[in-house]
Amino acid sequence: MEIKIMKNIMSANDDIAEENRKYFKNKNICTINIMASPGAGKTTIIVELIKKMSKYIDISVIEGDIASSIDSEKIESMGYKVVQINTGGGCHLDANMIKSAVEAIDPKEKSLIFIENVGNLVCPSSFDLGESMKLVISSIPEGDDKPFKYISMFETADVIVLNKMDLIKYVDFDKTNFINGIKALNLNVPIFEVSFKTGEGIIELSDYIKSKL
Amino acid sequence: MEIKIMKNIMSANDDIAEENRKYFKNKNICTINIMASPGAGKTTIIVELIKKMSKYIDISVIEGDIASSIDSEKIESMGYKVVQINTGGGCHLDANMIKSAVEAIDPKEKSLIFIENVGNLVCPSSFDLGESMKLVISSIPEGDDKPFKYISMFETADVIVLNKMDLIKYVDFDKTNFINGIKALNLNVPIFEVSFKTGEGIIELSDYIKSKL
Repeated sequence: MEIKIMKNIMSANDDIAEENRKYFKNKNICTINIMASPGAGKTTIIVELIKKMSKYIDISVIEGDIASSIDSEKIESMGYKVVQINTGGGCHLDANMIKSAVEAIDPKEKSLIFIENVGNLVCPSSFDLGESMKLVISSIPEGDDKPFKYISMFETADVIVLNKMDLIKYVDFDKTNFINGIKALNLNVPIFEVSFKTGEGIIELSDYIKSKL
Repeated sequence: MEIKIMKNIMSANDDIAEENRKYFKNKNICTINIMASPGAGKTTIIVELIKKMSKYIDISVIEGDIASSIDSEKIESMGYKVVQINTGGGCHLDANMIKSAVEAIDPKEKSLIFIENVGNLVCPSSFDLGESMKLVISSIPEGDDKPFKYISMFETADVIVLNKMDLIKYVDFDKTNFINGIKALNLNVPIFEVSFKTGEGIIELSDYIKSKL
């Protein structure tokens, strides 16, 4: 019974995700679904990528949070179009939330949309949004064992960012173990080592995203 | 329809949680449900508290994870009784999982059980396990805005640990903002500033827990 209902919910989500995907394809819009633990650097990555890429492409942002508009205010203060989704307790975004947010944004053709998902390494990985790319951030202080514990998230990622590289000298983090964990799940996924404090890896990451537009 | 089913699931959980609570009360067992983001220090806190407290009280551990037995192996290697629960994709522990794990442990009277929940600041806060105490860990690198975004978790905590204090000099973290965020939700909750690298705050935390046994 429960399983059947879950199946219906997921299939309704998949149908709307498919509609979103068609809409994005028709308008030549690239959408990047950014997923990570709380505090891994989702908003910071969006802010820094906007700085690097906004000369080349029109950018808007969908901010997902359980509550608050702290992150969307940060982006809005930079002068960019942002829609806040508050899930009111919900632990992930779904395709229908994205559909409504995109209607509110009315994005330009050939533009880029960053979607900041709810801070959670579990649930967001199960919900297709119709996005072009799933970008997963893992940060150094979280530890090197995350790919072994949050399998679905790392398995389905199209690109992985290892963030807060500037902290690696202060914590125990075995980079080889982390990378082996990812390779076992997702052999060819690109991994970018990044620090927004030192600037490490940001150009490489934004160049990679540009190459996918 | 969906809402009704969710209500049934939650009320079934609450019934089993109530059974657990009675069982723990009858046997004079203290159970501490430890919740946090991935990588905030849940396993480390259990290991360090076992070191400080195992002379005084019999301790066992329930380890919740989506997949893997990395954490339970750590605890087992110290010679303590541990039961691993793998939720197989599920984003939180529930009362029935705890009931089964406790049957497997068969804990002594007047003992202590640490429950490590799935790494997630969202879903675990909605599920009563019948525990004596909800201990929420937030770590410095996650940032000071977490209480404003993950309201239910901080609102329902019985004790809060601010972990990785040794990293505060390397990141932007406004402690006043963090504490104000908590006080707005949960005025009298004790907050312990802790670092397992430097030893800061561990005795204060273990003394507090001892006082609650």
